[in-house]
Amino acid sequence: MLLSQIHEPADLKNLSLDQLTSLAAEIRRFLIEKLSVTGGHLAPNLGVVELTIALHYCYNSPEDKFIYDVGHQAYVHKILTGRMDRFDTLRKYKGLCGFVKRSESEHDVWEAGHSSTSLSAAMGMALARDLKGESHRVIAVIGDGALTGGMAFEALNHIGHEKKDLMVILNDNEMSIAPNVGAMHNYLTKLRSDRNYLRAKDEVEQLLRRIPAIGGKLAKTVERMKDSLKYMMVSGVLFEELGFKYLGPVDGHDLPGLIESFKQANNVSGPVLVHVLTTKGKGYTPAEMDSHKWHGVSTPYKIESGQLLKAVGNPTYTEVFGQTLIELAEQDERIVAVTPAMPGGSGLVKFAERFPDRMIDVGIAEQHAATMCAALAMEGMKPVFAVYSTFMQRAYDQIVHDICRHNANVMFAIDRAGFVGADGETHQGVFDIAFLRHIPNMVLMMPKDENEMRHMMKTALEYKDGPIGYRYPRINVPGVPLDEELVPIPIGSWEMVREGDGPVIIAVGPMVQVAEEAADMMKREGVTASVVNARFLKPLDESMLLKLAHGSGELIVLEEASQAGSLGSAVLEFFAERGITGLDIRLMGVPDRFIEHGSIKEQLEEVGLTAEGVVLELKKFRSDQPYILAKKVKPV
Amino acid sequence: MLLSQIHEPADLKNLSLDQLTSLAAEIRRFLIEKLSVTGGHLAPNLGVVELTIALHYCYNSPEDKFIYDVGHQAYVHKILTGRMDRFDTLRKYKGLCGFVKRSESEHDVWEAGHSSTSLSAAMGMALARDLKGESHRVIAVIGDGALTGGMAFEALNHIGHEKKDLMVILNDNEMSIAPNVGAMHNYLTKLRSDRNYLRAKDEVEQLLRRIPAIGGKLAKTVERMKDSLKYMMVSGVLFEELGFKYLGPVDGHDLPGLIESFKQANNVSGPVLVHVLTTKGKGYTPAEMDSHKWHGVSTPYKIESGQLLKAVGNPTYTEVFGQTLIELAEQDERIVAVTPAMPGGSGLVKFAERFPDRMIDVGIAEQHAATMCAALAMEGMKPVFAVYSTFMQRAYDQIVHDICRHNANVMFAIDRAGFVGADGETHQGVFDIAFLRHIPNMVLMMPKDENEMRHMMKTALEYKDGPIGYRYPRINVPGVPLDEELVPIPIGSWEMVREGDGPVIIAVGPMVQVAEEAADMMKREGVTASVVNARFLKPLDESMLLKLAHGSGELIVLEEASQAGSLGSAVLEFFAERGITGLDIRLMGVPDRFIEHGSIKEQLEEVGLTAEGVVLELKKFRSDQPYILAKKVKPV
Repeated sequence: MLLSQIHEPADLKNLSLDQLTSLAAEIRRFLIEKLSVTGGHLAPNLGVVELTIALHYCYNSPEDKFIYDVGHQAYVHKILTGRMDRFDTLRKYKGLCGFVKRSESEHDVWEAGHSSTSLSAAMGMALARDLKGESHRVIAVIGDGALTGGMAFEALNHIGHEKKDLMVILNDNEMSIAPNVGAMHNYLTKLRSDRNYLRAKDEVEQLLRRIPAIGGKLAKTVERMKDSLKYMMVSGVLFEELGFKYLGPVDGHDLPGLIESFKQANNVSGPVLVHVLTTKGKGYTPAEMDSHKWHGVSTPYKIESGQLLKAVGNPTYTEVFGQTLIELAEQDERIVAVTPAMPGGSGLVKFAERFPDRMIDVGIAEQHAATMCAALAMEGMKPVFAVYSTFMQRAYDQIVHDICRHNANVMFAIDRAGFVGADGETHQGVFDIAFLRHIPNMVLMMPKDENEMRHMMKTALEYKDGPIGYRYPRINVPGVPLDEELVPIPIGSWEMVREGDGPVIIAVGPMVQVAEEAADMMKREGVTASVVNARFLKPLDESMLLKLAHGSGELIVLEEASQAGSLGSAVLEFFAERGITGLDIRLMGVPDRFIEHGSIKEQLEEVGLTAEGVVLELKKFRSDQPYILAKKVKPV
Repeated sequence: MLLSQIHEPADLKNLSLDQLTSLAAEIRRFLIEKLSVTGGHLAPNLGVVELTIALHYCYNSPEDKFIYDVGHQAYVHKILTGRMDRFDTLRKYKGLCGFVKRSESEHDVWEAGHSSTSLSAAMGMALARDLKGESHRVIAVIGDGALTGGMAFEALNHIGHEKKDLMVILNDNEMSIAPNVGAMHNYLTKLRSDRNYLRAKDEVEQLLRRIPAIGGKLAKTVERMKDSLKYMMVSGVLFEELGFKYLGPVDGHDLPGLIESFKQANNVSGPVLVHVLTTKGKGYTPAEMDSHKWHGVSTPYKIESGQLLKAVGNPTYTEVFGQTLIELAEQDERIVAVTPAMPGGSGLVKFAERFPDRMIDVGIAEQHAATMCAALAMEGMKPVFAVYSTFMQRAYDQIVHDICRHNANVMFAIDRAGFVGADGETHQGVFDIAFLRHIPNMVLMMPKDENEMRHMMKTALEYKDGPIGYRYPRINVPGVPLDEELVPIPIGSWEMVREGDGPVIIAVGPMVQVAEEAADMMKREGVTASVVNARFLKPLDESMLLKLAHGSGELIVLEEASQAGSLGSAVLEFFAERGITGLDIRLMGVPDRFIEHGSIKEQLEEVGLTAEGVVLELKKFRSDQPYILAKKVKPV
């Protein structure tokens, strides 16, 4: 076992090429075995085993800066930097993070979770290095999928202009999570197939020598022609035009070839791009066959068969969304689904099969997707922008400027709202209420169960007055009976789930069930709390709020969302704007810090968003000496 | 006068080429004269006179969709679509909008103000057209500056892949607002200078015929070589590689040439890009000489001399920022200024002269800028991201994911915070408090005057614990004396500006002065209000808030920012989280709608953010029967 002798990158340096190759095999075996228990991003990491070994062999981390785009392909890096023994805790609460994590190691210099940030990070580090007069290398590893994100292009454009020494490794596996789309992808495919062009160089020079000597006007043309030969010699014209030296393509599973390429790259001054071809899932047949499925597995699997050991259970909200959208689209041909590279994650695979013309995968391009949806809506279509809450952050300006300002009738299907579990702090969907609520014209909903979700989808479809979204969590649905007919819910109407004469819990989405559990627990102690399903985050149900103000005056707003700026804050604003005071309103949401990876249950417990937590808060109404400063009281 | 006969685009169709040329001259004269009174985006519009005429001559708006990127270059379009007689009201309150405006004309199909949205809009319209079985043309006009915005690349990548019929006019004037930077710009410059390549086509074919007949291995190479000739024939390889047919470059002031190019473009199926070379300010010498200055003029000017008739007055906050940053950078060499294509607008021209290596203009690329700043900070630099509030929206995700999650010590200089006047609804800086406040680790300030602003800049520089920003308005400073020594302000501390025993006005930035005026007015009526300068939007001054709770209990939070989610909401949350109730807190901010163009004064009046407005609100504390529902009261 070579692997057990590797505690830091320096331990690689004295290994022979044969030993490095054996090490690669050991690492593959290690990953396949460990992840069969914990789950994790298997396919991406199997794809970069040789690449990561070659990087650590050729360069000196942490002096040289390795920046992994997205950072879920850094397992091999973690193994080589002394974290092998923590893989049993991968993606678990307080365990090894599934992404690059600065607090874990000095070798982790840049964290990510969202795509396409590595080039900007590399540029910042290269600028800082030069300003400080240092001389280490800065190396970004970016996938071909991430390259379609607009900010990656912004960075390419800047890097190519500034000509800083900086190395970009394009890890081209023809996939983001799903197969890649886009012209850049087509271009890269062409480069892949054009490898023999490189060999033509000698032939062409030979040919040129055969051109008879000519003078006059044509002489200049011949010179131009020789100039243009670079287009034939070097396939990466697009990158060359943007100011990069292009090297490749290189077989990403050929260790000697990789090492040789890095040596070549070292001789280049200014930005260089090494085009490395890798196979997602390399070395594990099930993952090679279906790298989409094996991109990230959240469950254990049987190594031999590749069978995922999924817990039996209700469908997810994502699945209900996908199925219901097909039903709606059967009846309304204006519906178009738009996804930024997440057809599978968003539950749209069957929709794409059924309506290939009405399924638009734009690649990793949330900004473009949002603005395109505005235009689709303005031309009479019914676009559904299916996007994870956390990735929707990328389209904030486009939602403000292009969708809401135009008051375009775009539907948002906001998946992964609330905690997301093992993906952790980069992926938590806890800000969307706060960043959407203050935008004029926005309507925002969240269902308490799948039946209500389906009615909300109908509500959004029938709504004609502007943008409207429904957010839903990354969990299984409770499994309630489904109504046959879908009926729009009146805009801004909440639902009184249970009415008591005690405190009121205004709850959002899955928190409605938590509120009910808490109310049950309080009932045993003689307190009958009300539970309200605040199914509209905006607009609020004003008449219900006014009614609630006349009850006990004790309200809790319970939401799995940033406590600052979300529904609790909207409720407070509502009463303040009307000069209604004296109410005792408590906020229960996600506190003002980033919440790390673990199970969703652990994350909820950490922040107290549990039935027990609500009971504690409810009891404060009894035990606290309420601290009320009112000078002028008008009793009701 | 031909111009007076043009009421709609159809009126152009029967004009001769000579008449069209005369019309162009008349339009130039009209623009130069009208804008000499109203101000406006003179240089960009002088640059597109022929282009816009040619478009309306060759195509049929509104059936064909014209989409202008940013939309400040649509004055000619407005003239040709029946809005000539409204130019006296340009950019004035309730007057003609300075951007494309759907409510003004059926010929205005897409509004913008932020750059780089036109390609996504065009793609959405083309998709909708094809899904509906329609056949009109979709034409996007985008500047070379806007092309560096990441979302434009996302759209190029998608358009080139989907191969929809769609025309992109690249209006290449080598400028965004400031001169362009970036590899794309360098590439376009090369295309500009390569125009003679087009003429070489015949020569090259002649040459190829001279190559002696050869068989075997070389035959294939010759074929490849012929293939590769397109790289010589067509300069726009980069666009061709992305799936576009490239036409050009075309002289954008040559009407017959433009019309001919559009005819060629019509014969192309799939996406086509016409590269049009224009001169900003064309036909008006002062604007041609300094198109940066003449990009947008906010004041009248003398036509003969080109002298801007600036009102004499105090410097702007922007100027104070620029000057102070130089002072700080003299003492601290870690300071680096980063601008997304706004060196002038952000007051950084002198800084760039003084510290060329520490001034980084990334082009129109807010996302890249933000993430790059995170990396700069993590490597020990002190990056100052100078950005307009409205454009900061584009970097929301990068601020969450790369800056705040990393807790990177980035300084934000947030210009144009609050109302911006004539640029109107696309540019209002009213959302930043609401979209920044809920992000963990963020510290956010706003000064009441320029002296405090300078101390805040020092505060930010000395702060070591994470991201910190100061926002400032697009107005002249009040002209207070400046302290010689800059001293950090304790984080989270507010300032009691005047203390009375009546209601308290918690005010932000320039609203502190408004609050003081209101307090003066109330004093005459015997009410002595307190005024608090809430110079930290986050964190709040908790001890002052607790103290205020023990006063009259009547509070107004006064801010030139979205009433939903901003400081008012933070204050309400603060008291709710501590179970302090019974206070009568009123919110005064920007209501939940988009506020259109006009002067800042008119915009403030429209929403009641004036001393009179505050007095009205203060009087409500007296006149309203306070609507207090408290059941449990603990008197103080």
